[in-house]
Amino acid sequence: MAIPVAERMSRLGTETAFAVSMEAGQLAAKGKKIYPFHLGDMNIITPSNVIEATVKAINDGKTGYCPTAGIPALRQALAEDLSASRGMSLTADNIAIQPGGKPTIGKFIMVAMNPGDKVLYPNPGYPIYESQVDFHGGVGVPYGFLEGDEGFVLDMEAIRAGIAAGAKILIYNNYQNPTGASSPAEEMEELARLSVDNDLTVLSDEAYFDIRFGGRATSIAGLPGMAERTVILYTFSKKFAMTGWRLGACVAPADFVEAVAKINVNDESCSNHFIQYGALAGLQGDNTEPEAIVATLKKRRDVLVDALNRIDGVKCYRPEATFYLFPNVTGAMERKGFGDVEDLRKACLNDTGVSFCTRRHFGRPLPEETNQYIRFAYSGIDVDQITEGMSKLTEFLS
Amino acid sequence: MAIPVAERMSRLGTETAFAVSMEAGQLAAKGKKIYPFHLGDMNIITPSNVIEATVKAINDGKTGYCPTAGIPALRQALAEDLSASRGMSLTADNIAIQPGGKPTIGKFIMVAMNPGDKVLYPNPGYPIYESQVDFHGGVGVPYGFLEGDEGFVLDMEAIRAGIAAGAKILIYNNYQNPTGASSPAEEMEELARLSVDNDLTVLSDEAYFDIRFGGRATSIAGLPGMAERTVILYTFSKKFAMTGWRLGACVAPADFVEAVAKINVNDESCSNHFIQYGALAGLQGDNTEPEAIVATLKKRRDVLVDALNRIDGVKCYRPEATFYLFPNVTGAMERKGFGDVEDLRKACLNDTGVSFCTRRHFGRPLPEETNQYIRFAYSGIDVDQITEGMSKLTEFLS
Repeated sequence: MAIPVAERMSRLGTETAFAVSMEAGQLAAKGKKIYPFHLGDMNIITPSNVIEATVKAINDGKTGYCPTAGIPALRQALAEDLSASRGMSLTADNIAIQPGGKPTIGKFIMVAMNPGDKVLYPNPGYPIYESQVDFHGGVGVPYGFLEGDEGFVLDMEAIRAGIAAGAKILIYNNYQNPTGASSPAEEMEELARLSVDNDLTVLSDEAYFDIRFGGRATSIAGLPGMAERTVILYTFSKKFAMTGWRLGACVAPADFVEAVAKINVNDESCSNHFIQYGALAGLQGDNTEPEAIVATLKKRRDVLVDALNRIDGVKCYRPEATFYLFPNVTGAMERKGFGDVEDLRKACLNDTGVSFCTRRHFGRPLPEETNQYIRFAYSGIDVDQITEGMSKLTEFLS
Repeated sequence: MAIPVAERMSRLGTETAFAVSMEAGQLAAKGKKIYPFHLGDMNIITPSNVIEATVKAINDGKTGYCPTAGIPALRQALAEDLSASRGMSLTADNIAIQPGGKPTIGKFIMVAMNPGDKVLYPNPGYPIYESQVDFHGGVGVPYGFLEGDEGFVLDMEAIRAGIAAGAKILIYNNYQNPTGASSPAEEMEELARLSVDNDLTVLSDEAYFDIRFGGRATSIAGLPGMAERTVILYTFSKKFAMTGWRLGACVAPADFVEAVAKINVNDESCSNHFIQYGALAGLQGDNTEPEAIVATLKKRRDVLVDALNRIDGVKCYRPEATFYLFPNVTGAMERKGFGDVEDLRKACLNDTGVSFCTRRHFGRPLPEETNQYIRFAYSGIDVDQITEGMSKLTEFLS
């Protein structure tokens, strides 16, 4: 006998990238040397001021519950930080602390979306958008990316078509996983205009806002008419190398934050108490260690992009943000006789130990797609290992 | 303009006890001395081995993601611990680590309950059961408690009626918040028989399993035919005074755990990584500090029960578990001319600073109820403050 499972569970997706992680782990257990480009985890240590303030808070007895939306000092500090970086006027009332960046996705969907509502979301994109929309009874409307001069650009035609078809909710992930895309100013402005003109509610997933190698990061929430309709997914995970700590925030108009905080009460009471003091120290401390993290990632990006572009039939942008690359491998696949990008991935993993994800782990391919892509994350692998792995991949694809 | 909010949000409840906390906090801010009996938080320090192992894990770099169902060592250790304490045969596959005890409630409902399903739940009871059932489209079927010789007993008539009316899911909270009720052996056995005979799925909320002052705690999941149909809510919060750390587990048949872990992937990726090493040290360490926590609570219980029973028109059991009391104050209210238990609470708070919750914070009163109850938590207040507060309450009610 098994406990009967509700129908909604058949609509819940997952991160199939974890399956790649498991495959790689199984090979590693058999003694195979693995070059881990598959997961967006970080092999970089959390800044020392965050660690010290967290340990101090434990020893100070910050071990009981805290308010469901977070400790007031952190909400206030984050409001100030985001006001400055996003060009907004936020107060503590606009912040609901979360146990990670990801919880904001599901909570946004639950608060903003009725069953049957159409939701525009990026595809290729973080697979949890599609999964949460489906799970809570919505209708996902995917939009893709096109290859531009400097990097991937949004398929604005698809977005317009989705709005014309009745979508009232837009999920926007700038800077983007898996493509590494950064919206040019005019693209973001056009998207904001569309949102205002059509009265859209927007989830702006800004998980990679602070992982930026040049220029200044901007948020769509800071554009005219957008603050009142935009919910920002914020996370401490990347800037402060705190992935496994699980701390982030939902940033939104105060009444929306109140609704999200009510879900917090029902789901997890509150986020961990003492880690909020660590995050506060990170926000208020000097920026030396977060900047060093970005510098480390930039070196890795350059080594990896250069190595990929030296391979015949591989074409890779040099993104200004995130720690992902999304090389077009159509030519290399044709040359080597691979029809399916997953066949390429598996052969490469088994032969070389170079482990990466493919376009397939970021949503169902759209009907019009003809090019083949794989995704490299370089947050969890050092430069010497990147170089070693790339020489094996180059040989494999030669 | 406000972001439009989905219809389901109108069905989401909350913990109204937080409002009491806020009232008390506002009075405290004005300089009023408060005796905090309203919230189940703990003013007791977390065991030192938990703290030490957590700090060590941070310094060892356990700061990246961990598996979505938890680190294998903790799942294994918890499976062994629960197998021994519950009389079960559990493996790591039966454990999905959660960011607290509470997340198991919502995830249980999402996995087990279809919209329209009838769910039996205790009332008075933890308000999140009712809220999550309503939110996800179920139909809550409340059952109450009766005053027995030694303590509160389940209203088995109400449970039978609920089953007869079609309920297929039962939420059972032994040891119980707010009543402090412990099922006598025959009551638990009867409930297990009913569950097996009627093929029920059971959520056994065992948050207070380890807060027990005499006798041996038992779990309905250990009774014949129950392991395969029961989901246990486990938490590290009470035994290890880790309320604000946010760590617990969903314990269930392996396929149910897999479904819950899939929700973990979608909602929060994983629970905090390094705290799991702290919890592991707690489970594997000697039991001196957890036993000292129970001894501290037992002293508080005795002082509080004795003081309450000395008040004319107040009748209070001496529960063998939890850190809650649910005194019947019908007589005292009549004597003092209070018609509404919330009026009593507010007058008492404003006059004496003694802050507690009432029956009203634990679900909508059932039609047949005639007695009046208030709820005292003694997890967050020391004996000297209990004594001082009780002398004020005694005077107020004299």
